[in-house]
Amino acid sequence: MTEAPIDIADAEAALAALRASRPLVHNITNYVGMTIAANALLAVGASPAMVHAVEEVEDFIAISSSLAINIGTLSPRWVDAMRLAAAKAVALGKPWVLDPVGCGATPYRTGVAADLARMKPAIIRGNASEIMSLAGAAGAGGKGVDSTASSDAAVDAAKALARATGAVVAVTGVTDYATDGGTLIAVEGGHELMPLSTALGCALTATTAAFAAVRPPLAAAAAALAVYGAAGAAAAARCPNGPGHLPAELCDALYRCDRAMLDRHAAIRVAAIA
Amino acid sequence: MTEAPIDIADAEAALAALRASRPLVHNITNYVGMTIAANALLAVGASPAMVHAVEEVEDFIAISSSLAINIGTLSPRWVDAMRLAAAKAVALGKPWVLDPVGCGATPYRTGVAADLARMKPAIIRGNASEIMSLAGAAGAGGKGVDSTASSDAAVDAAKALARATGAVVAVTGVTDYATDGGTLIAVEGGHELMPLSTALGCALTATTAAFAAVRPPLAAAAAALAVYGAAGAAAAARCPNGPGHLPAELCDALYRCDRAMLDRHAAIRVAAIA
Amino acid sequence: MTEAPIDIADAEAALAALRASRPLVHNITNYVGMTIAANALLAVGASPAMVHAVEEVEDFIAISSSLAINIGTLSPRWVDAMRLAAAKAVALGKPWVLDPVGCGATPYRTGVAADLARMKPAIIRGNASEIMSLAGAAGAGGKGVDSTASSDAAVDAAKALARATGAVVAVTGVTDYATDGGTLIAVEGGHELMPLSTALGCALTATTAAFAAVRPPLAAAAAALAVYGAAGAAAAARCPNGPGHLPAELCDALYRCDRAMLDRHAAIRVAAIA
Repeated sequence: MTEAPIDIADAEAALAALRASRPLVHNITNYVGMTIAANALLAVGASPAMVHAVEEVEDFIAISSSLAINIGTLSPRWVDAMRLAAAKAVALGKPWVLDPVGCGATPYRTGVAADLARMKPAIIRGNASEIMSLAGAAGAGGKGVDSTASSDAAVDAAKALARATGAVVAVTGVTDYATDGGTLIAVEGGHELMPLSTALGCALTATTAAFAAVRPPLAAAAAALAVYGAAGAAAAARCPNGPGHLPAELCDALYRCDRAMLDRHAAIRVAAIA
Repeated sequence: MTEAPIDIADAEAALAALRASRPLVHNITNYVGMTIAANALLAVGASPAMVHAVEEVEDFIAISSSLAINIGTLSPRWVDAMRLAAAKAVALGKPWVLDPVGCGATPYRTGVAADLARMKPAIIRGNASEIMSLAGAAGAGGKGVDSTASSDAAVDAAKALARATGAVVAVTGVTDYATDGGTLIAVEGGHELMPLSTALGCALTATTAAFAAVRPPLAAAAAALAVYGAAGAAAAARCPNGPGHLPAELCDALYRCDRAMLDRHAAIRVAAIA
Repeated sequence: MTEAPIDIADAEAALAALRASRPLVHNITNYVGMTIAANALLAVGASPAMVHAVEEVEDFIAISSSLAINIGTLSPRWVDAMRLAAAKAVALGKPWVLDPVGCGATPYRTGVAADLARMKPAIIRGNASEIMSLAGAAGAGGKGVDSTASSDAAVDAAKALARATGAVVAVTGVTDYATDGGTLIAVEGGHELMPLSTALGCALTATTAAFAAVRPPLAAAAAALAVYGAAGAAAAARCPNGPGHLPAELCDALYRCDRAMLDRHAAIRVAAIA
C-alpha cells in the first residue's frame, strides 16, 4: 500500500513508463466502445487489440501485457471467452481489469459480473451503481442499486468489494476513488460533459489495463484516473458547443498529456488509510 | 390523429418532455451505427443502452421506456433477441420502433423485416426503397424496390404499410414523411451531406424511439424528424469541407437544439388528412 | 501488367471512375473498424454495406460490385460467412480483397488467413508483419514475423505471396508497395499519425475493394494507396494536436481528393519489373 501513487508525480512517472514500454492490451469489450477504447489506448501510448474468439483468446493473452474485460454487450459465447481469457491471464501472472457494465440491470448481467469478479481481477472499474450492485451480488454486502448514486455513496461498497475479491476497486463519478480495501485514494478531474459521450468509462477501463501493465493495481488505478481525468477536463475545455467532439479531443489530450496538464486538471489525495 | 404535432411548437414541447424525463431507450441495433446512435441519444437528452442477449432482453425492456430494433447487421441469434424484445415490449405496453435496414436487398433480410413488421411496432422508419419493399413484403402492395426512389415516391407505400401494420410509418429523404395511414405529415430539414455519413438514419431511428417514450407514435415521429432534421441542417452548416465531422456536429446540434434552431432549419406541415 | 497505373494521372482517373459508378462494396469486417470503413467508402464515392450472416452473404455479393474481407475480430461463424462470400464472389467474377489482420499472432488467426488467401482474392492488403507471416503460412516462404518490420523488409515476402496466391499483394508502411509478383509499384504518402488512429488500415482495405470494382487488381491497389495516402497526409496536416480528429479529417480529404491533393501528397513509381 505504501507503493500507491499519492501525488501527481507518480502518475506522471507511470505515464512515462507506459509510453516507454507500449504494452499490448488485450480487450474483450462491448461493440459500442471498441473504437474509442482502441483510440484512447493508442493515444495514451499503448497498443490495443480486440480479440474475442474462444479459439484464440488464451493464445492472445499469452502475447499481451494485460487484459480488459467489459460486459457491456455480453452474450454467452463472449462470456465463455471472457472466462477463458481471465483464467489464462491469472495463470500467466498478467493483470486483468473488469468493467461490470450495467451490473444490477438484469439477473443475467449481474450473475456474469459476479462470476467474473471471483476470477481474481487486478482491478474492477465501474460507476457507483455498478459497484454497489456488484458488492451485493458478490456477497460483500452493499445497500442496493441506485442509478443516481454518487461515487461518494459507493465508497463503502467499493472497500467491501475490494476485500471480498482481492481486487483494487475504482469507482468513478464527480470524484473518483480507488481502494484496495485499506487505502482509499480520491482523484479529482474529468468534466460533466463526459457522461454525455458514450463509452468513455469503457475507454477508461481499457486505459486502466494499460497502466496495470506497468504499475501494481492501486498505483495503476490511481494513475489511470488522474491521467484520464486530466485529459477529459482538458478536452472538455475545447468543446464549447457540446459533447460531439469530445472523443476526438480526449484522444488528443491523452496524446499530449504531460505534467502541466496533470497539475492543471487533476488532483490525487490519499483520503484514508484503514 | 388530432393529437399529431402540426407545428414546430409541438416538436419543441416534445423535446422538452424528452429532456425532462430522460427515457432509457433499449437498442438492438447494428454494429456500424451503435456508437453514433448512443451518442445521438445522449445528446438529445435520452439514456441509451445496447443490449442484445436473448438471456436478458426481456428483463431489459422491462426497465426501459422504449425500444429500437434495427436489422442492419442481422444474424439469427440477434433476430431471436429482436423477436423476444418486441413481443415483451408490446406485452408491457412500451412502444418499439423498427428500422428495416436494407429490406429488399436479400430474401433473408426482407423476410425478417416483414416478420418484425407484423409484431406491432409503434413506428417503422426507413428510406423510400426500404419502405416500398417492406410494404410489398408485408402484403400491403407496393411497386417494387428502386434504390434511387425519392421519399415522395414512397408515400403511397408508407400509407399502405401503416394501414397493414397499425404502425406509424416514417419515410426519410429530401422531404421526410410520417403517416398513420390517414394523416400525412411532411417535414423539411436535413442536408445533402447526411447520407454521406454512415448510420445517421439508424441514429434517427434510435432518436425516434426516445420521442416515442414521451409522445404518441405520430407526434413522436414528427417531432423526431423535425428535431433531427433541424440538427442535421445546423450541423452540416458547420461542415464546409465534407462529411467527416458531421456525426460530432450533429451531436452538438442535438445537444443545443432549441426553438430558434427548429424555426430556422425545419418545417412541419400536415400534407394530407385522409 | 502494362495496364498498371504508373503515375498519378492513372490514380486520378481511377478515382473519377469510382465516383462515377458508385460501386456497392460488400464488407465482412471487424467490429472496431466498421464505422470508419463505411465512412471512408462514402467519402471516396462508394456505397458501403456491412453484411455477415451466412443466411445472406451469397445473395448480397450477387448485388454488389466487390467484397472486402477483414479478419480483425474473427470468430467461427463469421469465418463461415467469409468463406461463403469469397467463393461466391469468385464464382461470379467479382473481385474480393483480403485483410489478414493480426496474421501470425495466434495459430487460429494465421490458419484462417492462410485458408482465405487460397480462395483467390484479387488483392491482399496488410502491414509488413502480416504479409511476412501470411507468406510463410501460405507456403510461399518468408522470414518469420517481426512486428516492427518495415514495409521494405516485406517486399520479397509480398512478391512470393503474390506468386503463390495469384493475388496482387499490397504491403503498407512508411512506403507502400503493390506487386503482382512481377511488377513492383512503390507509393509514397500517408503520415506518421495514421497508425495512432485505429482501423485506418482496415478502412484502406475497404477503399481498395472500391477501386477493385473499377480497375484491375494492380491498378486498383496502386490507385487506392495513392488516393488514401494523399488524403491521409492532407488530413494529418489539419491535426496539429494529435490523432483525435484524424478519422474525420481523413473522410473530408477523401471527399475532396483531387489532382492537386494527389500531386502534393502522394507519389507513385514503378520500383521494379521482374
